[in-house]
Amino acid sequence: MELSGRNQLKATVKEVNLGGIMAEVTMELDGGAEIVAAITRRSAERLDLKPGDSVIAVIKATEVMVGR
Amino acid sequence: MELSGRNQLKATVKEVNLGGIMAEVTMELDGGAEIVAAITRRSAERLDLKPGDSVIAVIKATEVMVGR
Amino acid sequence: MELSGRNQLKATVKEVNLGGIMAEVTMELDGGAEIVAAITRRSAERLDLKPGDSVIAVIKATEVMVGR
Amino acid sequence: MELSGRNQLKATVKEVNLGGIMAEVTMELDGGAEIVAAITRRSAERLDLKPGDSVIAVIKATEVMVGR
Amino acid sequence: MELSGRNQLKATVKEVNLGGIMAEVTMELDGGAEIVAAITRRSAERLDLKPGDSVIAVIKATEVMVGR
Amino acid sequence: MELSGRNQLKATVKEVNLGGIMAEVTMELDGGAEIVAAITRRSAERLDLKPGDSVIAVIKATEVMVGR
Repeated sequence: MELSGRNQLKATVKEVNLGGIMAEVTMELDGGAEIVAAITRRSAERLDLKPGDSVIAVIKATEVMVGR
Repeated sequence: MELSGRNQLKATVKEVNLGGIMAEVTMELDGGAEIVAAITRRSAERLDLKPGDSVIAVIKATEVMVGR
Repeated sequence: MELSGRNQLKATVKEVNLGGIMAEVTMELDGGAEIVAAITRRSAERLDLKPGDSVIAVIKATEVMVGR
Repeated sequence: MELSGRNQLKATVKEVNLGGIMAEVTMELDGGAEIVAAITRRSAERLDLKPGDSVIAVIKATEVMVGR
Repeated sequence: MELSGRNQLKATVKEVNLGGIMAEVTMELDGGAEIVAAITRRSAERLDLKPGDSVIAVIKATEVMVGR
Repeated sequence: MELSGRNQLKATVKEVNLGGIMAEVTMELDGGAEIVAAITRRSAERLDLKPGDSVIAVIKATEVMVGR
């Protein structure tokens, strides 16, 4: 599937924390920065996310703010 | 200001396109990947964003999806 | 790509309106309801969206509210 | 209340999972597709959501991505 | 309609700017602070928003960040 | 850091509820209205949020809906 989401950043899973409803997935971008996703636990389980997995962090452009 | 937003990625502005209401800001992350923000034109003007500016792309963890 | 986004609804494009920065894509879900996406114009052009195209409306669960 | 949110889809609650802070509400759209909302537990309790309830899934157009 | 959205703030419309696809609605909260919404132009027209109108700014709790 | 986020509302923390992954922060705006943020537990802990703290509720304009 090709997505309209403008931001599709290559990353590696570093840590997956599962809560009751939500899960926190910590990833390392190819450039070294860290990026964190809060997704549902069921999504994390369905994708079977584990440390070391190659993934894509997908972010809609309307969700990105700019600071300076 | 220190922000709860988990993702604060260092970037450089590459291009700013101004529309009537919205603006599209294309940035290059320190690792080389591109990230795009759709913000209001007034915000882009208030921050006076120009190519070459050092900025931070701020993204709430609940806005990040994971693909694999 | 398999996505963490919980909601991936089959739809058909009905109308694409292009603005300077943003585009409005009106779709009809398989069940007949209408759903509208505001995405960047560049994404609409990159995906070459036209009326009649089969697409998927992707929505993160954290973006859905419930009314009653 | 009439809402600016472009997407207001008729649905029926199928399942409500309550966590400590968040709740996951699984709904079936009138056309048969499934849609999931991650809302706060307090909102789920305030609306007293139960399987079989007729509800509306509300989604802002800027939150919808398009895939093909 | 009763909404799961936790934040429903009473406000008065101060200014409506219409673009090609999007509209920017500037409101004043009852406490005096200003709040701005970027919605689709069609939503602004459908709600017939004009300066002086009493409205509600609706924000999902997952969209609010905290700074200090 | 100066932010593109159009809505930066002064508030006081009233209550912080910590879950496994997420936290719910209830704030009172200067005008008296209540606003709730669902952020990650780690963000709430990193900012060391406690009742009585002066904070800023930050909301991107694209996340605000208008009801009437």
